[in-house]
Order: sequence, then structure tokens, then C-alpha cells
Amino acid sequence: MRHLLSTRDLTRAEAIEILDIAEDMAAVQLREVKKLPTLRGKTVVNLFFEDSTRTRISFEAAAKRLSADVINFSAKGSSVSKGESLKDTAQTLQAIGADGVVIRHGASGAPQTLATSGWIDAGVINAGDGTHEHPTQALLDAFTIRRRLHGAASRGRDLAGVRVVIVGDILHSRVARSNVWLLSTLGADVTLVAPPTLVPVDLTAWPVTVGYDLDAALAAGPDVVMMLRIQAERMNAAFFPNSREYSRTWGLDDERFHRLAPTSIVMHPGPMNRGLEISSAAADSPQSTVLEQVSNGVSVRMAALYLLLSGEREATA
Amino acid sequence: MRHLLSTRDLTRAEAIEILDIAEDMAAVQLREVKKLPTLRGKTVVNLFFEDSTRTRISFEAAAKRLSADVINFSAKGSSVSKGESLKDTAQTLQAIGADGVVIRHGASGAPQTLATSGWIDAGVINAGDGTHEHPTQALLDAFTIRRRLHGAASRGRDLAGVRVVIVGDILHSRVARSNVWLLSTLGADVTLVAPPTLVPVDLTAWPVTVGYDLDAALAAGPDVVMMLRIQAERMNAAFFPNSREYSRTWGLDDERFHRLAPTSIVMHPGPMNRGLEISSAAADSPQSTVLEQVSNGVSVRMAALYLLLSGEREATA
Amino acid sequence: MRHLLSTRDLTRAEAIEILDIAEDMAAVQLREVKKLPTLRGKTVVNLFFEDSTRTRISFEAAAKRLSADVINFSAKGSSVSKGESLKDTAQTLQAIGADGVVIRHGASGAPQTLATSGWIDAGVINAGDGTHEHPTQALLDAFTIRRRLHGAASRGRDLAGVRVVIVGDILHSRVARSNVWLLSTLGADVTLVAPPTLVPVDLTAWPVTVGYDLDAALAAGPDVVMMLRIQAERMNAAFFPNSREYSRTWGLDDERFHRLAPTSIVMHPGPMNRGLEISSAAADSPQSTVLEQVSNGVSVRMAALYLLLSGEREATA
Repeated sequence: MRHLLSTRDLTRAEAIEILDIAEDMAAVQLREVKKLPTLRGKTVVNLFFEDSTRTRISFEAAAKRLSADVINFSAKGSSVSKGESLKDTAQTLQAIGADGVVIRHGASGAPQTLATSGWIDAGVINAGDGTHEHPTQALLDAFTIRRRLHGAASRGRDLAGVRVVIVGDILHSRVARSNVWLLSTLGADVTLVAPPTLVPVDLTAWPVTVGYDLDAALAAGPDVVMMLRIQAERMNAAFFPNSREYSRTWGLDDERFHRLAPTSIVMHPGPMNRGLEISSAAADSPQSTVLEQVSNGVSVRMAALYLLLSGEREATA
Repeated sequence: MRHLLSTRDLTRAEAIEILDIAEDMAAVQLREVKKLPTLRGKTVVNLFFEDSTRTRISFEAAAKRLSADVINFSAKGSSVSKGESLKDTAQTLQAIGADGVVIRHGASGAPQTLATSGWIDAGVINAGDGTHEHPTQALLDAFTIRRRLHGAASRGRDLAGVRVVIVGDILHSRVARSNVWLLSTLGADVTLVAPPTLVPVDLTAWPVTVGYDLDAALAAGPDVVMMLRIQAERMNAAFFPNSREYSRTWGLDDERFHRLAPTSIVMHPGPMNRGLEISSAAADSPQSTVLEQVSNGVSVRMAALYLLLSGEREATA
Repeated sequence: MRHLLSTRDLTRAEAIEILDIAEDMAAVQLREVKKLPTLRGKTVVNLFFEDSTRTRISFEAAAKRLSADVINFSAKGSSVSKGESLKDTAQTLQAIGADGVVIRHGASGAPQTLATSGWIDAGVINAGDGTHEHPTQALLDAFTIRRRLHGAASRGRDLAGVRVVIVGDILHSRVARSNVWLLSTLGADVTLVAPPTLVPVDLTAWPVTVGYDLDAALAAGPDVVMMLRIQAERMNAAFFPNSREYSRTWGLDDERFHRLAPTSIVMHPGPMNRGLEISSAAADSPQSTVLEQVSNGVSVRMAALYLLLSGEREATA
């Protein structure tokens, strides 16, 4: 694999390969010395144009577990914020010999530009671009679902027939977008539930069912309920009246949570707005995978870095 | 040892164990390669909710000398500052597999909460919490006193009978608090000298003598005079009229310094306000331990990290 | 070598030694594992009082390739910005056992003060001080010129007879200053071309020719044309009317670029203001060394760190 830019591009075989390698990486995490020498001498740059401490430290921990050198490059306060172009930044990274670049950017498509421009040889991992994609989040979600459903027999399996409901602000969510493509590729049946104002207009092209009634979607007995984070700045804007209204109509509150089958799992990419899109009872229940998701994130990112940076790089994009 | 949250909790034996291991670590600092493989594969997170470059780099240097991987997590500008709870942050650190967390926080008790909540398995070191404690500062102070008094014969010794005067804003000082408990546990006689407005109200419970006359306290011939940093923001507030007045009444100026016995030592946790609580002559004299304190800080922090993170972690808190 | 503070201090033999070691380091960059164990156990502190992500990551990559531990110390938001003196900061770095300090500072002479004050034993590298010097930039420029002109036969050679034109804001440019001294020491003929308001007053002492006509300087057929970055904040000040006027008179635009001999090279320290001091056609042409300069920067900084920090430190400054 040359880059990891989106889940839409991944074949079923590629996705399963990443998840299987992530299983190996998860096993490493259980050892006393959690480190592998695999990427010794490689340099990974975390190029963050948006702040995201959680994602940055997850990638930083993953790279260091593989013995890579990590250089953090926060674009805030750097010459980048003074108008330096992405091209100039890319050429600097190329010149210092970066082997991998983990990029988070506010503009959809920036990682794709970085990877395909010819400016750098480094492998590029998209750590979230605008409202476009966040592929490692979707991969860690798929990994988490597979482990919950198949346990020790996960390796090599896909998610055929697994029924997933994704709830919330689909329109602005790169997490939702990456999950839709990946979960579909892995054979899952995906239903989106969202306020009508927060549904993308190009939805007819997506391999999903869309609903506007959360209670109906939950009554159908999904295996997985994935709640999205609501952005405070969208509240009181044109999208919906207020947070109490949102919670009542689109939140996984205690009442809705208790209606779920005890075998169904509850997911959230974090950080959660407790009491808004998810109740604390749901978030902290044994059915919740919130902590496993973060933990699995390190394993999945180790797998991605391993696939992109170990051995000989492929010559073509 | 499971955590290092306060010096009040430390037994005499535990305190001496830390100081003795710090002696070993100080010896390592004299080698050409100052690095030990002890914590290879361990991850230490510096979780700083308040800026403190000096303390952060001291812990960072200590952890790297022990071959740990270090991840810096400045809470400023992170999702933490956007209202994420300490619990969510802790769970992220747990999920990325942090073995040790060094926490500085503006709220007294935050490290205790982090350590005893069950949110994380990592060993927690308090790097300063509100006006509560700063235990590694007190340990490096005790280490410095012991070395000055006992030299090469320090190992295994306490500070029985050593007379220490601590001068300044006791009320707001976590450094003073940690020193009071630790020095008392080690057998020292502690006298506090402070403006009446800057003395804690619960002082009757403390194992100290309190005075309001610096000249009288110095005339008694202390072995150690520890000056505290005065916070500029307390100046011109209710506490005292102005900085010249403060310096005249509570500062270790040249005149007072020259009255000290040549064997007595002068300490300051830094950074100093030269000309305010301490004169440059006092700060730069051979009796001053200011630089040794910073240097010993790395050895003491290596000892703390070693005790908390090497070998098998104990199961209970 | 004890410190690297300016190129004015360097002898021809010292300069060639650095360039030759940088050739060895460049060869290391071509290996699969780009890392040398040379500085294992050494600690390099990047002490940046001014933001410069590009320079910081170049030094960070260089130090990590030599297996040093790197601690980044941004003075912004630290106690330094609260009035702590350079002396107190230096003593902290001494106390934590820094072996090398890479300092960028807004005040000309700060690295010299740090190195010669006796506050620290560490080797000091000037990474840019005020309008004074930026010696590693000049060294990487000389390295780049030598490689372009002599290729594989570069080792041991100087730049005798090479004709270099440096164009732009000489007055405020530490890059220009460092290049003037180094290139002259290496035997090059240096011509400065600048607006009269941006020429230093002490210029008579410099080993250069000064001109005010860019077209005449280019007509003379230089081997190297080095364009300086124009600082936006100088625009519309007393120095010149506006950016279009600047570009027309002092910029390497397409027309001027095409008049250059195909063997002459075009240099820029970056980041470039495309369309202002340099056109994109010039910047992206095969004659441009902009990317090589950044890449060579890592090799040159590895060489400087190696010379200052490996083996026994010399006792005297």
C-alpha cells in the first residue's frame, strides 16, 4: 500500500489485510516491552493543520511503538500560517527525508493533493480532511466491531450481514463518510439516521438506507449503533432548535439505550457530549466500545504505518 | 510504589529509598552515555494543564535517560480546553497504553483523582497541583540538603536535627507544603516565616514552628534557608503594599545574606525574582544550591519514574 | 570545534571540514536505515525564542538521525516569556545535562552570550540571531554550490573564483551576512545587489562588491544568483513603495531568469514569496537549488552536531 487517503478506495482484501495486521499489533501491546524494531531509522511527521491532541498522540504512540522517529509539526504559529503553501511545506518534508506524513487538514482533499502531487515520496496517511474522510477512524471502528462479534476468530473475516445504524450529523462528518464506504465494502448493511438538514445531498450514490426516525431504526434490532459527535457550533444555527430538542429526537438517551438488545454494541468516536448525543449510562455500559475504539486506534495506526513504511516503497502511486 | 502524589503520604523509609535511588541516577549522569535501558518500551505522557517548561523538560530528560518514549500533551488548545473532562482525557491515555502519566494541573487534587479513579492503570506522578503539593520538588530539595550536609556518606541517611527556615508566600505555595511534610518526615526542624496574610489558616495541624520575623529566624542559625518565589500577581493585591516593602521585610537581601553562617545553605525552587525575594549575591554565592537543585531534579525524577514504572506494576492502588 | 556561532569566525580549513563531513552525512541519507548511533545518550535542546518550524524540524531530524535525544523548548508561553533571563534558562539546560543547544533568538549576539558566559558546558549552535548570522544556512548554501559545481569531486574543494550575486534586503538578512563571510573565506567573489535603503552602513568592511542595478549584475554572468526572502512587514514602510515596484526592480522575474546562462544556479533560503522576489518559473527550474538547499540542510546540521558533540568536548571555548 502506497498511501491511506480514504476508505472509499480500499478493496475488501486490502481492508481485511489492515485489520489482520492490526490484530498482530494488538498482540504486541500485551507484551511487557510493547515495542517493535520494524520502522527503526524511519521518520514519521505529524503534520497537523488542525489541533487534535487525541489523534496526534494516537499516531505518535503508534509510530514510536514501531521505533520510528516522530517529528510533530503543528501548522499553527508556523510559517505555514503566514501563507506558505502546502507545496512548500511538502517540499520541506521531502527534503528532511520524511518517510511517512500523517496529515490533518481543514480542507477536504488536501491529503490527496499531498500524495499525488509528486512533491514527496513519503507515504501519506489522511488523519482527517475537512468533511471528507478519516479512514483510520473507520478502520478502528471496523476492527472494534469485528472483535466484538467474532472474538478470537476475527482474522480474515469481514462484516457480512452486520446491521449498523449511524446517527447524527452525517452532513459534516468525515467519520460517517469513511465508515459508510468501509463498512459497505466489508459487507455490512448501513442505515443512516439524521435530521433532514444534516443529510448530504449526494446521498443517492451512497450504499446506505436513510431514515429520519431513530426509534424505528432501533426497533429494527441493529447489531451496532454508532453515535456521532455533535459540534456545538452547529447548535442554534439553522440546523436544529437547541440541544434539548436534539437530544430528545436524535440522542441515545437512557430510555432508548435500555430498549436495545443486550448483544448490540454502542459506539462513539469521541470526545463525547454526555447528555447530548449519548447518555452516560449508554457510554459507560458494557455494550459501549468507546474505550476499545481508542485503544484499537493505536493498533490500527501501527498497521497502517507498517504497511506504508516497512520494506521497499512501491514506485507508483 | 504505585503513584507519587504527595510527600505527606510518604513514609521515612519510602522517602529514603527514593533519595538513595536518585544517588544511583546521579552517578549515571556522570557517564559518557547517560542513558539506561531500564524503561525501554514504556511510554511516559507529560500531561500539562499549566505551562511549565522547566518542569516538563526535567521530566522529559529524566524519562529519555531511562529510554522511555515520551509524549507531550499540552492541554492548551486541545479538546481538553474545549470542555473534555479529565476522565475522557485519562481514558485516552489508558487507551494509548501510557505506562506513566506526569500531571501538572491548576486544581488541587487532580492527580489524586486521576490515580484513584480507576480510569487508568498508569503510574501517576504529581508535577504540581494547585496550591496543594509538588512532591518531586520537595524530594529534590531534600536530596540537595542531604548531599550538601553528608556528601558521599548520604546514602541511607535522613535529615534528623537539620534546621530549615522556609520564607515567603506559604499560603499559595505547593513547594512549601510538600517540603513541610517531607522534611518533617525525614526528621528536620522546619520553621516557616511569612507575612501574616500569607500563612495558611490550618497551620496548627502542621509539624512546624511559625514566625513573622525573618531576622529573628536567621539569628537562630539555621542550616538551610529556603526562599520561595513570590508571584507578581499577588503584589499590590491585599497581601502586601509593594515589592520594595516585601523585599525589605521578607527578602534575603545582601545584608541578611552576609549575616548567615558560611556553612548554612541558601535554596530557591526557581525561577528567581532577583532583587525581590533573593539578592543576586545570595543566589550566586557558593552557599546557594539553586543550580544543584535543578540538576538534582533530573536524578530525583529518574528515581521516581524508575520506582513507578520498572518491573511488574502492583495490582492495587 | 566547540561552538558554531558565526561563519565569520570559521577558517577555510574548518569550513571545508564541515562540508566534507556533511558529504558523509548525505551518503547516510541514501541508506535504508538513515540512522547513525553516533550521538546515542546525548541530549540536544532546540531552544527557539522565535518560531521557525522549518529550521527546528531540520535540526530535529538531524539530531535524531544521529540517535540523540531531542527536547524542544519553545520560549513562547514558557517562564522565559514571563521575564526569566537567558541566564536562568541556560542554567536550567545545564542542569538537565544538555550536550548541545540549538538556539534561535531575536537578539543579535544571544548565542554568543550563551556560549561564552560560562553558564553552560553544552556546545552551542546559532540557528539565527536577530540580523546577525545564520551559519548553518550559509554552510548548506556553500555545500549546495560546491556539489552543483564539482559533483562527486567536491570533497576537499573550496569555491575559489565562483561568482555569487546576492540580491535583496541585505540590511536585515542574517542569511546574507553569514553567506558573505563564508563564501569569501572559501574564495568566492561576492556581489551584493540591494535597494540603497536596504544596504548596511558598515559595508566598507565587507569583502564584497556592492551594486544597485540587478540587470547589470546579471549581465556580468554570475555562477550563482541567490535571492533573499523579502519580509512583508518591510513593505510599504520607508524602504520601498510597494511589492509590484520591488518585484520589477529587484525580483528575479521570468524575463531576468531567462537571460541567465543555463549553467548558472538560482538559490533561495525559503520560504519563497513567489511572484515577489522570485518567479515560479525560476524557483521550479532545473537551475533552482531550492529543494537541494533544504535537503542539504539536514546533512550540514548533522555534520555540525557531530563535530560539536561526538567524542570528548574540548575544555576551552
